[in-house]
Amino acid sequence: MRVRLDHDRPRRIGQPEAILCEGKALADLDAILGALQGRPTLLTRLAPERHAALAAPPKDYDPASRTAIVNGCLPARTGRVRVVTAGTGDLPVALEALRTLRFGGLSPDLIADIGVAGLWRLEEQIESIRDSDAVVVVAGMDGALVSVIGGLVGVPVIGVPTSVGYGAAEGGRTALNAMLASCAQGVLVCNIDNGFGAASAVLRILEARAR
Amino acid sequence: MRVRLDHDRPRRIGQPEAILCEGKALADLDAILGALQGRPTLLTRLAPERHAALAAPPKDYDPASRTAIVNGCLPARTGRVRVVTAGTGDLPVALEALRTLRFGGLSPDLIADIGVAGLWRLEEQIESIRDSDAVVVVAGMDGALVSVIGGLVGVPVIGVPTSVGYGAAEGGRTALNAMLASCAQGVLVCNIDNGFGAASAVLRILEARAR
Amino acid sequence: MRVRLDHDRPRRIGQPEAILCEGKALADLDAILGALQGRPTLLTRLAPERHAALAAPPKDYDPASRTAIVNGCLPARTGRVRVVTAGTGDLPVALEALRTLRFGGLSPDLIADIGVAGLWRLEEQIESIRDSDAVVVVAGMDGALVSVIGGLVGVPVIGVPTSVGYGAAEGGRTALNAMLASCAQGVLVCNIDNGFGAASAVLRILEARAR
Amino acid sequence: MRVRLDHDRPRRIGQPEAILCEGKALADLDAILGALQGRPTLLTRLAPERHAALAAPPKDYDPASRTAIVNGCLPARTGRVRVVTAGTGDLPVALEALRTLRFGGLSPDLIADIGVAGLWRLEEQIESIRDSDAVVVVAGMDGALVSVIGGLVGVPVIGVPTSVGYGAAEGGRTALNAMLASCAQGVLVCNIDNGFGAASAVLRILEARAR
Amino acid sequence: MRVRLDHDRPRRIGQPEAILCEGKALADLDAILGALQGRPTLLTRLAPERHAALAAPPKDYDPASRTAIVNGCLPARTGRVRVVTAGTGDLPVALEALRTLRFGGLSPDLIADIGVAGLWRLEEQIESIRDSDAVVVVAGMDGALVSVIGGLVGVPVIGVPTSVGYGAAEGGRTALNAMLASCAQGVLVCNIDNGFGAASAVLRILEARAR
Amino acid sequence: MRVRLDHDRPRRIGQPEAILCEGKALADLDAILGALQGRPTLLTRLAPERHAALAAPPKDYDPASRTAIVNGCLPARTGRVRVVTAGTGDLPVALEALRTLRFGGLSPDLIADIGVAGLWRLEEQIESIRDSDAVVVVAGMDGALVSVIGGLVGVPVIGVPTSVGYGAAEGGRTALNAMLASCAQGVLVCNIDNGFGAASAVLRILEARAR
Amino acid sequence: MRVRLDHDRPRRIGQPEAILCEGKALADLDAILGALQGRPTLLTRLAPERHAALAAPPKDYDPASRTAIVNGCLPARTGRVRVVTAGTGDLPVALEALRTLRFGGLSPDLIADIGVAGLWRLEEQIESIRDSDAVVVVAGMDGALVSVIGGLVGVPVIGVPTSVGYGAAEGGRTALNAMLASCAQGVLVCNIDNGFGAASAVLRILEARAR
Amino acid sequence: MRVRLDHDRPRRIGQPEAILCEGKALADLDAILGALQGRPTLLTRLAPERHAALAAPPKDYDPASRTAIVNGCLPARTGRVRVVTAGTGDLPVALEALRTLRFGGLSPDLIADIGVAGLWRLEEQIESIRDSDAVVVVAGMDGALVSVIGGLVGVPVIGVPTSVGYGAAEGGRTALNAMLASCAQGVLVCNIDNGFGAASAVLRILEARAR
Repeated sequence: MRVRLDHDRPRRIGQPEAILCEGKALADLDAILGALQGRPTLLTRLAPERHAALAAPPKDYDPASRTAIVNGCLPARTGRVRVVTAGTGDLPVALEALRTLRFGGLSPDLIADIGVAGLWRLEEQIESIRDSDAVVVVAGMDGALVSVIGGLVGVPVIGVPTSVGYGAAEGGRTALNAMLASCAQGVLVCNIDNGFGAASAVLRILEARAR
Repeated sequence: MRVRLDHDRPRRIGQPEAILCEGKALADLDAILGALQGRPTLLTRLAPERHAALAAPPKDYDPASRTAIVNGCLPARTGRVRVVTAGTGDLPVALEALRTLRFGGLSPDLIADIGVAGLWRLEEQIESIRDSDAVVVVAGMDGALVSVIGGLVGVPVIGVPTSVGYGAAEGGRTALNAMLASCAQGVLVCNIDNGFGAASAVLRILEARAR
Repeated sequence: MRVRLDHDRPRRIGQPEAILCEGKALADLDAILGALQGRPTLLTRLAPERHAALAAPPKDYDPASRTAIVNGCLPARTGRVRVVTAGTGDLPVALEALRTLRFGGLSPDLIADIGVAGLWRLEEQIESIRDSDAVVVVAGMDGALVSVIGGLVGVPVIGVPTSVGYGAAEGGRTALNAMLASCAQGVLVCNIDNGFGAASAVLRILEARAR
Repeated sequence: MRVRLDHDRPRRIGQPEAILCEGKALADLDAILGALQGRPTLLTRLAPERHAALAAPPKDYDPASRTAIVNGCLPARTGRVRVVTAGTGDLPVALEALRTLRFGGLSPDLIADIGVAGLWRLEEQIESIRDSDAVVVVAGMDGALVSVIGGLVGVPVIGVPTSVGYGAAEGGRTALNAMLASCAQGVLVCNIDNGFGAASAVLRILEARAR
Repeated sequence: MRVRLDHDRPRRIGQPEAILCEGKALADLDAILGALQGRPTLLTRLAPERHAALAAPPKDYDPASRTAIVNGCLPARTGRVRVVTAGTGDLPVALEALRTLRFGGLSPDLIADIGVAGLWRLEEQIESIRDSDAVVVVAGMDGALVSVIGGLVGVPVIGVPTSVGYGAAEGGRTALNAMLASCAQGVLVCNIDNGFGAASAVLRILEARAR
Repeated sequence: MRVRLDHDRPRRIGQPEAILCEGKALADLDAILGALQGRPTLLTRLAPERHAALAAPPKDYDPASRTAIVNGCLPARTGRVRVVTAGTGDLPVALEALRTLRFGGLSPDLIADIGVAGLWRLEEQIESIRDSDAVVVVAGMDGALVSVIGGLVGVPVIGVPTSVGYGAAEGGRTALNAMLASCAQGVLVCNIDNGFGAASAVLRILEARAR
Repeated sequence: MRVRLDHDRPRRIGQPEAILCEGKALADLDAILGALQGRPTLLTRLAPERHAALAAPPKDYDPASRTAIVNGCLPARTGRVRVVTAGTGDLPVALEALRTLRFGGLSPDLIADIGVAGLWRLEEQIESIRDSDAVVVVAGMDGALVSVIGGLVGVPVIGVPTSVGYGAAEGGRTALNAMLASCAQGVLVCNIDNGFGAASAVLRILEARAR
Repeated sequence: MRVRLDHDRPRRIGQPEAILCEGKALADLDAILGALQGRPTLLTRLAPERHAALAAPPKDYDPASRTAIVNGCLPARTGRVRVVTAGTGDLPVALEALRTLRFGGLSPDLIADIGVAGLWRLEEQIESIRDSDAVVVVAGMDGALVSVIGGLVGVPVIGVPTSVGYGAAEGGRTALNAMLASCAQGVLVCNIDNGFGAASAVLRILEARAR
């Protein structure tokens, strides 16, 4: 037996196991899809050409976020969540977060392109961000947007560094470190480009609140 | 004017500015303390010998967590928060988190020494952890405790990597990276040794819930 | 003379020289194959397209592990060895370890997909792991499986970090460092993705025992 | 001859050679001071205890910036220069920049403690910053202040990352990289903690303008 | 709304927002081009095949510098600017700087191939470099040209490290660090391969002077 | 309760929990010693001045290896183990390994100072090394001794990189990486300076054999 | 003028400028070839497909070393030089060194495949190596061959680390650092994969001797 | 036996084993000194306070270079060697090289303080450097002096990077990498601060020539 799904996960943590498709052989992905037994499941990092090459390509596939949803979404839940980006290059990661939140039963908003080099764009949106249950901030390069938003609102701020940028951006490590070392207190951080993880953390926050 | 306090912060984010004492000259710390004007304030990373050398050393000083509380704590609020540690060396960071939570009006619990090398210790405590509004997991070396707890409970899990360990532990970077790359979904991470930041994030989560 | 094989190695260390095919020119691989003189030999990291391009492609070729066996396996020997993986993406490395063990005369077992995010899967298999002469643990991302198994069993535990993961996984360095800094005592580590090396170490352990 | 001063430097670049005292033996510093022959000279990174141990300690010594000025300052020149800091811990580096600018004949202003976690403080000072010939921005941790100022003003912005912070701040490398990867266009960067270098660059800008 | 341009930037900093094309989806680039409303705009890092794939490929496109200019250049301004390179491999970055300067209204000169391994080439050009308002020095490998020029002229020196080189050149990080740690005082540095940034900094210097 | 010992460990893995003293507060070490209840226990990385400052300093303390043994050693077991060092600077780490092996019931031999710069020294000892059940190789700088021994003997080879060396030795990381990337097959590696871990791995090997 | 050759170099250092083809545009390479004016010139890192695409592809092209020689070699000189490799994967770098030495007028020998995992191969060749004017040692992975040879012979030893290996080999940085931190005294090191540089250093040694 | 000297080394490589004192226990140093049996020996990195604490402190001790010579120097040999430094902070490393060369029987010259920020100083000395058998170039920070000298002279150039500098100098790694990636061909490099190694390499060059 080469595939062993964690079918018990929803009971333990309130969310099903997601399938990270990158780095898995197509045959193994086919085996995983065949073993889902009707359970709602999210597939992430599924490139279009790999999606097309599956034995039974999931129909609800979104190439921009590289996600597929199999057997439908989780039941709807309440919560005002904003996903903001610093620049256009951060969109694919933000879209992964948005898709994951929708899979989790939420209706999140995207607020795009409000990087700190043009602060008035952020200021126009700040009331909407302040009036959230959680905000996911997606930014590459200097990652400065997390610090500025973290200093302006009191809601949970989850930073997602992206690999956008070159040279000293170091594939996202600079944004990651800048978010971790942020001068704004109490902001939290995910792995580089991990829109899924940020959304999953939002689901934990809302799940704990719902009990 | 060499010191400019952000007296407006509680209005914006629901928490006052904290004073990171490490790296600030004693004269500047004295000036900051003189400018507080009765506002409740937390001082972090205040070494005992530096506390003693202040012009007016705060009375509510705790050397184990290297924190001082000036002008009392914030109003009490509700919330079940657990701070867990992997090993005895992680205690100072955990104590900083606990002190920050108490300053913020909470009554958190410490669950110490439940590292994964002896899994039964974690299993004895898991129901208590599951029954939390948020859990702060403090671990150095391999940081594996975050992944194991993240797979067992659905509440918000905030990992704090510590600089405990040597060699390949790389001053906490290994635990930090392991938490960021965790196989458990939706866990969030703070800077190395940043117990204050984890606690501040918990306050954001509870603040957003309280509205 | 551009190729000089170490034909004396079996006498010295009980195992023949293996041929790492990655990074060698096809002409040099052909020359090496031509100089084997009937000695049992393992080829590793031989990509399918390179295997097909050889002058005389070895017949016993396995694309999943990217290994070829030429002139048969070594004599059978006794030993209960388990190769366990944290996730599906770790399979190619585990298969390289399994093939090397079979080449060495053993009949190892694969226990796949027991990562710590779903701890019940590991608990179901732990007695089988405990009842081994050595266990090879293949894991990427946080590498936490090594620490958990190392704390549960007393047999030799050999960690193989894999390059599975992205961002803070740092191409396997995070799993590598986490295994080296493990809170479980006496676990040993190989190079990233080096399933061959882990298996070769198992052969050393069993060889020393057999004398 | 163990010391060879570059007495020709003012003719070539309009500024004399400065003496970096850190890492030089006391005897060598004494020899350098003895060879100055009345030329105005700036000494940097001269710790108080080393200053006191010199054979002839310069009288114009400032311990906060760890600088000494020997044989007076350069002739006064015009130019509106602001040195701004993100936090109190950045002051020593800012003071080194201010002292170097004063040595160079300028009368710069310090604008302290306007980090982005409390954006109103920056907004109060932005007109003064905009109305400069050059602005030196001294910041540690996330270095975000450089990006925000760089997006608000069109004058030359010179970022000086500081080693303030811990963990993921990585001794100033995170602020350095964040400034280099800034989303604000045309900001320039110095070495970590190099207040002297930033001031010297300002002198180049004003020197070129003066011709 | 996925694209939000900073149309206010020229008013604030005297230069329009530039579009970094690398890492943005083609559809997003088309949307940005459609929203420019006649404003002069520079596009950088636009690979030839991506330029050709745009819905309306800008006509003023230069493949060597990978830049496009849309809606013409900014008004002409005065200023003697030299862009120098250490070697032939540094040309693409230098050309990006030159194109950005021309877009900004300047008529800069290129002085190519004057690396320090053949110092006479630099010496032949030094008077021309000294007689500049600013000099952009583009160099990879050891980045030594910045130090040598910085020691010979008093004008603003802006170093642009390039990713030219291999092994210990570390993708430009060695040149970057060498420029930051330069023994020549007051040289400033940009991100690796960031010819655009260096040119934009020159525009800040000339803009401040022009007021 | 701030201290929670893993008293069940000998049952699970055949070795008791060891106490890493570095990084633990003295009060916590006193509490741990008070909770041992007669169980044989090894203390590692206990500096002489910290040993002396304990409430009840263990009598069996060895300053060269910085270890203490409390409540005696484990029962004697059979096994020929050699601990070899490359140079004199590697001795403290080798002595920690030797002490741990003795605590574990073995009588290991030390073979010191056989680094590869003088190969005849190794050749004189190679038969003794070959005739072992396991060999622990302690080496800093280039770590080359592991590769040479790994090519000469077929027994389990456990490399312990040390922090001996400077500059490019990078605190032991170079030796660590060289051992991991060794051209000798099947050698295994521990954390830097981790003599305890190597010895504990030997105990696993002998324990598994003894069953 | 975009190309400025250093035609004066042979007079200064006794060797002509070599052309590193990697990273230069084809048009620039054509311009360089057109400006050589009959001077003997070595081209390095010229990939076969790029060689074929040149306007006038040099006839004396060797794809294995990726070098071309234009206008013949330098005059013959005396000197016994050996180029040794640890493994087959190191051959391309060794061949670049051999070609450079032949261009420089020497007749060097290749001694291939004598890595330390099979020490008898080195021992068979050691007298030949000892009887050299200089030896170039090309090795990847652990780079241990440099230390062993450096301890056995007194002639100049020039280590060339290669990017052969994976994981902890870190693209050649481990071999580089191991050679720099070698326990053998007086060995010298080149950049990773820089066979040209090692050969050029040999030419310096023989040039100085010849005077 | 804890100390095993390589008394055979002079026969093999023409130089005796040197004793690196840093990191060795005083008792072990005493044992080594007691075992020298009249052989001329160099001790390096022997701090003054450690020298004074030896059982029989060698009389020929030089605190500036931290070296001691025991039992006299090696026989005089011919050779013109220059040791040049970029700045005053590089002197201790240069002095270690000079002492090692004198121990080896040479009479080397020091040319101090000719860093490239003031190029005329180098130009004044270049004929003396060109007229050498080998030149050792000691430089920290940007390490640029190696590239400039390497382009001006044809004799063997041995770069010794030093840990002089801060921030981006990265403890000497920047100078090390810049020397390795130098645009000057055929320069060779030692470990950071390794004046001994550079001198030992010079002895190899002269030894080979002398045969």
